[in-house]
Amino acid sequence: MTDTLRVLGIDPGSLKTGFGVIDVHRSRNAYVASGVIRLPSERPLPERLKIIFDSMLEVIDEYRPHEIAVEQVFMSKSAGSALKLGQARGAAIVAGTFRDIPIAEYEAKKVKQSVVGSGAADKQQMQQMTKTLLKLSDVPQEDAADALAVALCHINSRRHFSQLGDVRQYRRGRVV
Amino acid sequence: MTDTLRVLGIDPGSLKTGFGVIDVHRSRNAYVASGVIRLPSERPLPERLKIIFDSMLEVIDEYRPHEIAVEQVFMSKSAGSALKLGQARGAAIVAGTFRDIPIAEYEAKKVKQSVVGSGAADKQQMQQMTKTLLKLSDVPQEDAADALAVALCHINSRRHFSQLGDVRQYRRGRVV
Repeated sequence: MTDTLRVLGIDPGSLKTGFGVIDVHRSRNAYVASGVIRLPSERPLPERLKIIFDSMLEVIDEYRPHEIAVEQVFMSKSAGSALKLGQARGAAIVAGTFRDIPIAEYEAKKVKQSVVGSGAADKQQMQQMTKTLLKLSDVPQEDAADALAVALCHINSRRHFSQLGDVRQYRRGRVV
Repeated sequence: MTDTLRVLGIDPGSLKTGFGVIDVHRSRNAYVASGVIRLPSERPLPERLKIIFDSMLEVIDEYRPHEIAVEQVFMSKSAGSALKLGQARGAAIVAGTFRDIPIAEYEAKKVKQSVVGSGAADKQQMQQMTKTLLKLSDVPQEDAADALAVALCHINSRRHFSQLGDVRQYRRGRVV
């Protein structure tokens, strides 16, 4: 097996879902791709969820990540927006499980801590830091930056308890 | 095409997801099947969502419904439980869209009004009424009863603006 690990980060939202793909090879991170799936807010819910699911399947089938990382949600939102966000998360996560890819979740605070060094980092700091860490020519769009950040957080977390050379063992043992 | 319409009702939940299948033929409803998918609460979220998605696909592939009806959520819950419920709903709805089945949503109050005649009906009244309307020998389990009720509500709503003989036209025009 290859010793390159490919991680897909997802930042699901009810209007926009960000994604970011990063390769790790011998402790070096390389940006592969990122983007934002925009949902037509005027369309009925099932149609919007279908767009998330289908788009995530497309991303997965194009980039074939070994693992997926999703940001866990900060809980200060209203019940109404939490429900909408939950539906989007459900559709995105199920696309990953449909392709049998291990999925790990990280709290937003942990993602910020891991990428910027502070759990209180703001959106702009996250965008700047993903640009710097991944040597991008421009700052990524906000949702794409968040998705790249959760992928980076996953990669950093993995380093704590696993050599990146043995993806297989990790996938068997630790991730869902 | 056949003039029998088969409706799958779904009552998604983060711990239990109920389903119920009803056939309509010449304005007569016939119970086909119902059940509850129980989720292991101790398992990680992606695994639980995968169980919902896979189980709903199994139900869909076994019973081949023409249309799906899902209960819309009552909004008094906390943000935390709304998020969990949203994730379960997302996984269940996406299973329907994956098989390209039209999905309609109904508010809980409308379902109760349609089945029991009162928007304030309680769980037991719903269970009793689905038993009576569908000529069942026993009351269905609570979540299965709610799923059968939303299917009945969908069937009743359809009658208002469409002859049941022409499913195709309806599916093209009105449902998502």
